Amino acid sequence: MSARAGIVVTGTEVLSGIISDRNGPWLSEQLADLGVDLATTIVVGDRPEDMRAALDWLAALGIDLVVTSGGLGPTADDLTAQVVGEFQERPLALDEALEGRIQVILERLRGRFANVSWESVLQANRKQALVPDGATVLEPVGTAPGLVVPPPPSRSTPTVVVLPGPPRELQAMWPAAVATDAFRAAIAGASTFSVRTLRLYGIPESEIAQTLRAAAERGVDLDALEVTTCLRRGEIEVVTRFEPDVADVYEAFEGVVRERHADTLYSDDGSTVDDLVARALLDQGATIATAESCTGGLVAARLTERGGSSAYVLGGVVAYANSAKVNLVGVDPELIDRHGAVSTQVAEALAVGAFARFGADIGIGVTGVAGPGGGTPEKPVGYVCFSVGHRDGRRITRTTTLPGSRADIRDRSTTVAMHLLRRLLHGEGERARPAA
Amino acid sequence: MSARAGIVVTGTEVLSGIISDRNGPWLSEQLADLGVDLATTIVVGDRPEDMRAALDWLAALGIDLVVTSGGLGPTADDLTAQVVGEFQERPLALDEALEGRIQVILERLRGRFANVSWESVLQANRKQALVPDGATVLEPVGTAPGLVVPPPPSRSTPTVVVLPGPPRELQAMWPAAVATDAFRAAIAGASTFSVRTLRLYGIPESEIAQTLRAAAERGVDLDALEVTTCLRRGEIEVVTRFEPDVADVYEAFEGVVRERHADTLYSDDGSTVDDLVARALLDQGATIATAESCTGGLVAARLTERGGSSAYVLGGVVAYANSAKVNLVGVDPELIDRHGAVSTQVAEALAVGAFARFGADIGIGVTGVAGPGGGTPEKPVGYVCFSVGHRDGRRITRTTTLPGSRADIRDRSTTVAMHLLRRLLHGEGERARPAA
Repeated sequence: MSARAGIVVTGTEVLSGIISDRNGPWLSEQLADLGVDLATTIVVGDRPEDMRAALDWLAALGIDLVVTSGGLGPTADDLTAQVVGEFQERPLALDEALEGRIQVILERLRGRFANVSWESVLQANRKQALVPDGATVLEPVGTAPGLVVPPPPSRSTPTVVVLPGPPRELQAMWPAAVATDAFRAAIAGASTFSVRTLRLYGIPESEIAQTLRAAAERGVDLDALEVTTCLRRGEIEVVTRFEPDVADVYEAFEGVVRERHADTLYSDDGSTVDDLVARALLDQGATIATAESCTGGLVAARLTERGGSSAYVLGGVVAYANSAKVNLVGVDPELIDRHGAVSTQVAEALAVGAFARFGADIGIGVTGVAGPGGGTPEKPVGYVCFSVGHRDGRRITRTTTLPGSRADIRDRSTTVAMHLLRRLLHGEGERARPAA
Repeated sequence: MSARAGIVVTGTEVLSGIISDRNGPWLSEQLADLGVDLATTIVVGDRPEDMRAALDWLAALGIDLVVTSGGLGPTADDLTAQVVGEFQERPLALDEALEGRIQVILERLRGRFANVSWESVLQANRKQALVPDGATVLEPVGTAPGLVVPPPPSRSTPTVVVLPGPPRELQAMWPAAVATDAFRAAIAGASTFSVRTLRLYGIPESEIAQTLRAAAERGVDLDALEVTTCLRRGEIEVVTRFEPDVADVYEAFEGVVRERHADTLYSDDGSTVDDLVARALLDQGATIATAESCTGGLVAARLTERGGSSAYVLGGVVAYANSAKVNLVGVDPELIDRHGAVSTQVAEALAVGAFARFGADIGIGVTGVAGPGGGTPEKPVGYVCFSVGHRDGRRITRTTTLPGSRADIRDRSTTVAMHLLRRLLHGEGERARPAA
């Protein structure tokens, strides 16, 4: 029997869709790493009765551990500590030493904002030093401390871990929460699962459904595994969790996937296409530059997402206007006149111009119709041309029509570009005339 | 009494954090527009018993309307229709006409993927045509139909709206769901709220807490309003919902905010800084170009997020390597030697180089230390220099140290850039020597 957890994300701004929740997904992964089974994530507003109803429901489900995020700020609508204190039947009291430590933190930040009344800051933050009786305090990363609040003597579960809403603070505080005795006791008996991830690019989800059936027909005991398939940014991800003693069942399952999808399975160790591209660029000591139109900088932004990317990214041009394609990237204006700005010819000229102008080894060119306007019968919204080129003369050029909104098309385009880049870095690509 | 709704997001891939949920936030906003009060959003995995427990809980809370997303795909772990059918005591039956319509859709997609068994596609999709007795079918946008499933005669609430997981499909199907009789009946009696949004830039959240207290002290009846304050991408957003008959209370509250924060309140009609920048660029017929280092293309990507942005965005350079700053943007290499690549001088040279190279009216320059490496005592991680310049000679140049991770620093930097741009477009900025 594995320990079971529930997550309660509080905040009207999350519930109302004003900001999107990053804590639920992150906590979920941390819990999985600890072998704790997550039953549900509940988002509630700032109304204390709704939060209390969520806690009562999780207790009724027999959940061992609840993690809350948010509601620890200085404003009056931040009520998590109070609600959790009542739920665990542990009255709040001012922890004066903690109040002093928060004040030291605030002193450091004092210079950051002008025109703020210092008294109002101290007053607003005093409530952050109210601690339920018997709770363990987690030291503040921002200004809000976290709490690990054990159940009352009258009830055996759940223990509640109270964490702040800002993801940076929540994540930094997590190890301290996990290290507390109350936390360890709550998850005692959790068994560690193995998690394996396969990534495929270029097939529909229904084909994976068929592969699962094929595996079952060949006698693979899928009930022993927890297989999740999902579409993610245009790729198929197959995540499998299993207890270590059924590793051979997993291997048999992976064998079936491998056999049926040899051409589209590109990662079997959790590596993303971004990981593979970064690793190959570093291994080959190659540099890269981009010239993008419809993606407006998103390909360059994706390549520079990781620290240390300056080792291989020299830069890029967002060639939105045709004049920019010509003047900044050196695309021949006649090519644009003859084939249109959205064409394989211009995509290839952008790729070549990118590596030539930046003095890089590899160039990426992207040009397309992101919409909502600008589509034609021949080149509808979603029609995007890609080219990756190496200065050794290799090119891969491809056109595809992507579904969805402007944001979808732009995002999905970065995935297509990353996969073409991965293939070029693995030695694919027809050799064109050598670059000038 | 307003109608109350609950959202149930299904999918182990969402619960486990593999993909982030975009449907909960979107549905939440739609419900608010209909005057429906959202009590909670619950995320559960693909286990039917967990989804059933969530539905039972929402029924126990007296919720009028439940909206589910996900679990309608062709794979065996997609079980929403079945679970909802059981919950509403309505057995499933194959709708052969619907099956035929799904097949027509699949025929159109047939050419998209190679190496897929057609039989397997049809077989996997047959289960998508299973419909609970008495439910209204919402025509597929992708291949999965949605459902509006009324409660059984034995129970009065809730009605369950079953929608597919892909945001594009869910959003396109929503108007049809809202138009059904069962949906209208479930939310009968919902009162329409007014929603007003104030945005402030440059103050901490604790200062807004103090303003709320000041408003209460002056006799503003805040209990009549639902005020939510949140930090969002470095800004403070104050969202207030209220019933139309207390509009005067809201006006009094807004008056207090306006009086105390005249210098930082930049929007009172829901407009974002992106809206204001786009509008000003269009009104002034001005064009813009970027030259960014640490943000790696994110400023250009943000400017081109909206359709029609090609009317004012000419393009940008991601000048990651110093050679790119010099060769592509024309930054004087001596400036880099003397002040460092991360300096106000280089930021200003990037801004000027951007408008000069692209022939634009306005240029933005950004250079900083996004981390995690590369920080020094003088220029730590998070230290970012910004400059916006107009070819009429005006400049605004600013340096700030931003908190958080590499991703936070890059994202927050785009907000700083947008606000400097907004100020420049509103006529601010010291006049430097005219541009060469």
